[in-house]
Amino acid sequence: MQKDGRMQQQYHNTFSIDNVILGFDSGELKVLLIERAEETFIGQMALPGNLVREDENLDSGAARILFELTGLEESHLEQLYTFGDVNRHPLGRVITVAYYSLIRIQDFNLIPRSSFARKASWVKVSEIPSLAFDHNLIVNKALKRIRGKLRYKPIGFDLLPEKFTLRQLQELYESILQIPIDTRNFRKKIITYDFLVACGEKQQQVSHRAAKLYHFDKKRYQELEQQGFNFDL
Amino acid sequence: MQKDGRMQQQYHNTFSIDNVILGFDSGELKVLLIERAEETFIGQMALPGNLVREDENLDSGAARILFELTGLEESHLEQLYTFGDVNRHPLGRVITVAYYSLIRIQDFNLIPRSSFARKASWVKVSEIPSLAFDHNLIVNKALKRIRGKLRYKPIGFDLLPEKFTLRQLQELYESILQIPIDTRNFRKKIITYDFLVACGEKQQQVSHRAAKLYHFDKKRYQELEQQGFNFDL
Repeated sequence: MQKDGRMQQQYHNTFSIDNVILGFDSGELKVLLIERAEETFIGQMALPGNLVREDENLDSGAARILFELTGLEESHLEQLYTFGDVNRHPLGRVITVAYYSLIRIQDFNLIPRSSFARKASWVKVSEIPSLAFDHNLIVNKALKRIRGKLRYKPIGFDLLPEKFTLRQLQELYESILQIPIDTRNFRKKIITYDFLVACGEKQQQVSHRAAKLYHFDKKRYQELEQQGFNFDL
Repeated sequence: MQKDGRMQQQYHNTFSIDNVILGFDSGELKVLLIERAEETFIGQMALPGNLVREDENLDSGAARILFELTGLEESHLEQLYTFGDVNRHPLGRVITVAYYSLIRIQDFNLIPRSSFARKASWVKVSEIPSLAFDHNLIVNKALKRIRGKLRYKPIGFDLLPEKFTLRQLQELYESILQIPIDTRNFRKKIITYDFLVACGEKQQQVSHRAAKLYHFDKKRYQELEQQGFNFDL
């Protein structure tokens, strides 16, 4: 309803939120992109984002946008950075607060319930097209942040299924850090960490030899962290 | 000139910037606070902050605010977090982008050239009074950030004079992390790092036994970091 008016609108001071939602699937890191249903950049690929409503806090706005795209209600969105260059939006001064989240792709279906997106899809991080606004810049900032954080926090487990193989874990690290990892050293190191627990199960329905499944014992990790343990995988 | 109008103003959507400027002096971590010269909260202690101008990027705004208070032109301000709760400002919807910087107190004098501050002073982090708006929350966020970062990045050296003693370095860590540090272990660890270089000089004009002076070889540190070295002091 607001659409026709908005097409002509010049923004004075406006805040928006853009979400960088990352997932991991088939050995590849992926980002959730939408096709914009609104001016400006209508029809172009972009991060899911929206103007902040008068009555909503920033965190709530970020959660709303994620929910409208995915139906996910419990997500751990973290503020990434605020982008506010004078000319970043063609219609005026709009600063955008970017959030990011690492989620399990397997946990939900993409069902856009939102006015801002025609459709949503997972795109390999290595194949991100030219995005609307400064959204390529925002995605790059998010990738840089998680690359840095991955080295000293066990954030990677948020992207894996509840039960995973050591190969999947290694692929995750390789895919995010974009470096090859030596399998023997990687596994040798992992074994020393007692927050990685063998489930006593193996993969089902795989064509190759079924591998053991593990899970991440978050509670145990937190205990170790309190005792001054430094994560470093 | 705008002041009288502003007193009655209700903000619709407005952005501001607030800076958490931290320094280290006499063994204590300190934060730069101002006495506000403007409504609202006039006369109350607050972080140095101001509305973002129409023609300035966020980073430039943060640098301008720091310059107006200190005359410091080259400073490494980093974006901290954006605070935008619906009710954080009594006059309407104002989101504020917070920046932080670690500076050498010794390098400058406080000469407010700004309209927003009556005066400025360094306040011990352990003695911060109740501040305007949500500024206590913002300071706490900055402290948490640097406590975390201090453990894996050599940011502490930005707070020390060019040449410092090992005692000063230890006091800095103790003051920021708020934990006592074992002197022997601390020094034993430091000696293994070749980016800490003895200047071949001693302290001047001290009443106690003059201690050796060191400096931080940033270039050497960066080389080591590129080779995959993990800082951990």
